[in-house]
Amino acid sequence: MRKIEIIFQPDGKRALVEPGTTILDAAKQIAVDLTSICGGKKICGKCKIIVTEKDRVNAITKNELNLLSNKEIENDYRLACSTKVIDRVVVKIPESSRIGKQRLQIEGIETPVTFDPFITKLAVKIAPPSLEDLRSDAKRLLDALKDTYSLTNLHIDFELLKKLPTVLREGNWTATVTIFDNRKIIDVEPGVTYPRNYGIALDIGTTKIAGYLINLDKGKLLSADSIMNPQIPFGEDVISRITHAITEPEGLTQLNEIVIRGINELLESLCAKTGINSNEIYEASVVGNTAMHHLFLNINPKYLALSPYVPVVQGPIDIQSQNVGSGVKLNIHSQGNVHVLPVIAGFVGADHVGVILATEIYKSEEICLAIDIGTNTEIALGNEKDILVCSCASGPAFEGAHIKYGMRAATGAIERIQISPKTFEVNYQTIGNSEPRGICGSAIVDILAELFKIGIINYRGKMNTNIDSPRIRGENKDAEFVIAWNEDTGLEEDISITQEDIRELQLAKAAMFTGATILMKNKGMTRDDIQKIFIAGAFGSYIDSKNAITIGMIPDIPLERITSVGNAAGTGARMALMSRESRNTANEIARKVRYLELVKDPDFMKEFANAMCIPHREPERFPTIKTLQ
Amino acid sequence: MRKIEIIFQPDGKRALVEPGTTILDAAKQIAVDLTSICGGKKICGKCKIIVTEKDRVNAITKNELNLLSNKEIENDYRLACSTKVIDRVVVKIPESSRIGKQRLQIEGIETPVTFDPFITKLAVKIAPPSLEDLRSDAKRLLDALKDTYSLTNLHIDFELLKKLPTVLREGNWTATVTIFDNRKIIDVEPGVTYPRNYGIALDIGTTKIAGYLINLDKGKLLSADSIMNPQIPFGEDVISRITHAITEPEGLTQLNEIVIRGINELLESLCAKTGINSNEIYEASVVGNTAMHHLFLNINPKYLALSPYVPVVQGPIDIQSQNVGSGVKLNIHSQGNVHVLPVIAGFVGADHVGVILATEIYKSEEICLAIDIGTNTEIALGNEKDILVCSCASGPAFEGAHIKYGMRAATGAIERIQISPKTFEVNYQTIGNSEPRGICGSAIVDILAELFKIGIINYRGKMNTNIDSPRIRGENKDAEFVIAWNEDTGLEEDISITQEDIRELQLAKAAMFTGATILMKNKGMTRDDIQKIFIAGAFGSYIDSKNAITIGMIPDIPLERITSVGNAAGTGARMALMSRESRNTANEIARKVRYLELVKDPDFMKEFANAMCIPHREPERFPTIKTLQ
Repeated sequence: MRKIEIIFQPDGKRALVEPGTTILDAAKQIAVDLTSICGGKKICGKCKIIVTEKDRVNAITKNELNLLSNKEIENDYRLACSTKVIDRVVVKIPESSRIGKQRLQIEGIETPVTFDPFITKLAVKIAPPSLEDLRSDAKRLLDALKDTYSLTNLHIDFELLKKLPTVLREGNWTATVTIFDNRKIIDVEPGVTYPRNYGIALDIGTTKIAGYLINLDKGKLLSADSIMNPQIPFGEDVISRITHAITEPEGLTQLNEIVIRGINELLESLCAKTGINSNEIYEASVVGNTAMHHLFLNINPKYLALSPYVPVVQGPIDIQSQNVGSGVKLNIHSQGNVHVLPVIAGFVGADHVGVILATEIYKSEEICLAIDIGTNTEIALGNEKDILVCSCASGPAFEGAHIKYGMRAATGAIERIQISPKTFEVNYQTIGNSEPRGICGSAIVDILAELFKIGIINYRGKMNTNIDSPRIRGENKDAEFVIAWNEDTGLEEDISITQEDIRELQLAKAAMFTGATILMKNKGMTRDDIQKIFIAGAFGSYIDSKNAITIGMIPDIPLERITSVGNAAGTGARMALMSRESRNTANEIARKVRYLELVKDPDFMKEFANAMCIPHREPERFPTIKTLQ
Repeated sequence: MRKIEIIFQPDGKRALVEPGTTILDAAKQIAVDLTSICGGKKICGKCKIIVTEKDRVNAITKNELNLLSNKEIENDYRLACSTKVIDRVVVKIPESSRIGKQRLQIEGIETPVTFDPFITKLAVKIAPPSLEDLRSDAKRLLDALKDTYSLTNLHIDFELLKKLPTVLREGNWTATVTIFDNRKIIDVEPGVTYPRNYGIALDIGTTKIAGYLINLDKGKLLSADSIMNPQIPFGEDVISRITHAITEPEGLTQLNEIVIRGINELLESLCAKTGINSNEIYEASVVGNTAMHHLFLNINPKYLALSPYVPVVQGPIDIQSQNVGSGVKLNIHSQGNVHVLPVIAGFVGADHVGVILATEIYKSEEICLAIDIGTNTEIALGNEKDILVCSCASGPAFEGAHIKYGMRAATGAIERIQISPKTFEVNYQTIGNSEPRGICGSAIVDILAELFKIGIINYRGKMNTNIDSPRIRGENKDAEFVIAWNEDTGLEEDISITQEDIRELQLAKAAMFTGATILMKNKGMTRDDIQKIFIAGAFGSYIDSKNAITIGMIPDIPLERITSVGNAAGTGARMALMSRESRNTANEIARKVRYLELVKDPDFMKEFANAMCIPHREPERFPTIKTLQ
């Protein structure tokens, strides 16, 4: 029978099903993250999906007309349980229909800051006009703020003048002003609204976008969440995104609009959870790698992909929210400020400035190595005196991509693994203690380390298929090791790690270690000089340091000196949102840090080839690891 | 036979014609200002008009398809010579199809300034990037400006970053930057373009809009022009415009869009004349009365029409051109600055700040009276020590409106009149020495004075219809005095002044004189204290001071102390465009000047009634005028 392809966005997963199969069944077959409380009984109305190619599925059913709102129907929403496939179709799963709890992407180190945000809200009583007092509305507001709060040199955003007369009279001459940076009034509301003052910190990664909603009246984190970067269908790494932006007509606009739409979805979900109106978010603080930074700001990224890879702009950017983006506007207060942290170089972005800020390397006496693991991995080495940074193209393997059963760190992801050296039995732990649906980054590190320690793979990463175990099957590049049997999984198949997966992981860990090595060489340092290692990144909080050393991902230093800091880039963005001092420090970091171009180093290729081995071709670099070479 | 009405916009003139009459013939009958070089032979293609109600005229002819461009046809252009009326229709005459040379509206006193504009353009060579020099494009541009011109603390407008990388490489690392206020880079162009730096000064009047295109590299006036304010169909005075803005849904947006479209037409025509691209205009300096100011800025003018008549904002405004207007954008450089001069009160606007700036009353030792005649007339009295201002609702009579044969000061307008006391023969002079088509402001003053001097009207303004002359005809309110016979005119009828016209003029001149009187009273001054009178306004350069005194429009002081300064508001706008010092002075003027609400003065009504007489009910106020009372 003819099979029909269904493509699920934003993950890009594909299912091949018979005509007439429901989207929900198709999603289950390939473990697409799609919620369904009633399990397909067509009563819960939770399995919402978006299908724009209406002629490729059955017509909307009476059941759906009952369970969906008119607005949803207008926006091409369907229920996966009631939608049957007729022809090849793309199905979008909105963030609200996902099961997976986003956690690992958003948790990060908490670095204390002096709470002193750029946004303040103040209520004020204003004298009404009379024939004896003919001051303009603007003047009488400014005079009232001067008299009440001794605020001078304030300037009213031009757009506010349009509503000012109505607002002052509606509030019966009591109003609340929102002030940016002690100098610009960016909103005025009737009556007293001052505690309602919020900000959003955003970390735009190549693969994931994390958002942190913060109360700017109190400095408290209210809610955090993350989504997949919806640009992924245009390429998984920054180079393919840049290529799309510069070669396709309207490519830049397209990528800009799609990322802002994604962020707006994230904002909507955070606002819904907290009962906050997006209009009450007055500032966004944004980090991201340099390519994401340019695409978010709709700035031509062409020269980021051409040697010598210079960015268009390095310094911090402050723009009114309404000026961000080409067509789609960022959904915070239209006069709100968008602060984008500075970048360091074409491949070391504002996210790494955030990591350096959050880990406080810049004021440490000890020599620190900070590794921010992502699709690109940035590494910083140094202390208060001098910091040297580089970027390595590690790829998205540790984020679960390019790995057969890789997934993001969501409910059902295997996050921790141990393999018995004798029986090869596997103990695993999943996020949310659910049935396993895939493997996330922290477990991927574990697997590689475990397989190496018990000799299932050798120092070259090759799987020994001569071992007699039902878990080891296939040959050469088709070889694989079964981690979970299908009867135990949430899927209809076994979860395994393949020889090809292992190759991907070797490439990734080799890239990271080479970066660290070249930085040390350039600063005239050895492993012994490193007093601290910070591991940042989506799975940072959960990584097993010993296993990371075992596979040769990070230098072999005593475990107590290694700290996982989670999404430290996001922490940096939060700090810059909450603290004037932190924002200034971030600017100083970006100015002072020195960038090293790895490929310019004559030892780069040799070091990379050596680092492909597990843990390394030169065992003396990993004295604590017993090698089987 | 049935007559059909044709309404010509923007003048609002109406013709009643037989079906099948061409628009050109109809225009000629009532002296509508419409050019036609071939005189209706259908060969010149100059009599372009806009007809949107297509079913009310004949279908477009082959002749028009040949003579009009496709774009014009799309935009409802027709030729008046080939368009025949079928039903009541509104015809718009674009500025380009007008005969009348705009002159009186734009000429003004030339007050010298220190040339020091806010916009500068500089060419600069920039070091290209290399693996040894990885500075961002923005940084290397700023560094080059620092090295070449010692400019520091510059900030690049965010929008420019989008094109910066392309521009720098296109110009082979030579670029020209446009800098606003020594602090913000608002444009960057490849190569060397620095002499091409222009600005526009705008005076937005209730009835007329004047524009002055200025070379900001040299400070030279390149071209000036004016148009009728296209808001006129929504009401002739500011109160009816405000009423439209606040009572009609979208009324404010509508008035805002229409005035910006009008200004854009004016810009287009100035640019076409001078070969300048509107994108090379980097700053606009704008004056206008407070209602025009609010409507131009799309600010709610509601409270300008409600006691105590306070404006939304008084201070100067600087906004990016792209943020002016709701839907329609001002057609200068999108990152250009729009500087709107400050206003003084709800009915004393930025135009009057311009008049005080241009006449230099604010630094005069002598006591000066400045009268800016317009639809509203603003008056200032004072000197360097203190200036008191007021506003009088004088109406548009002296601008030619509400006067049967009144017209603006364009080609064919009678601008000067003498009447023989014996024969009542009339000598007149027209603008451009053409056949007379109507009467403009300066001649309107002359007529009233002449008719009074020779006894055709008495001190109450009543026409003596007992005098035996073919020029005097009709009775009571239908009485009129013929100024030009139809065989001499460009019309098919006589040009006359009517009893109703005279009444309008009395109201207008009484309003002005009352304002001056109340100001003097409030400053404890008499006529003898006034050392200078400045008469400003559209016809200011051409008014006969003696006649103005004769009719009781201005105080009776020696003629040599009276100066006509023309469109001094426009001069003020030009000064603020060309000189940082003048712009600061304008702000100081607006802060210091005191506003007097005329109607609050207990003597107002009595003074007004007395001033209705010619020259005045109290002849001792006009000792040099022989009254016939």
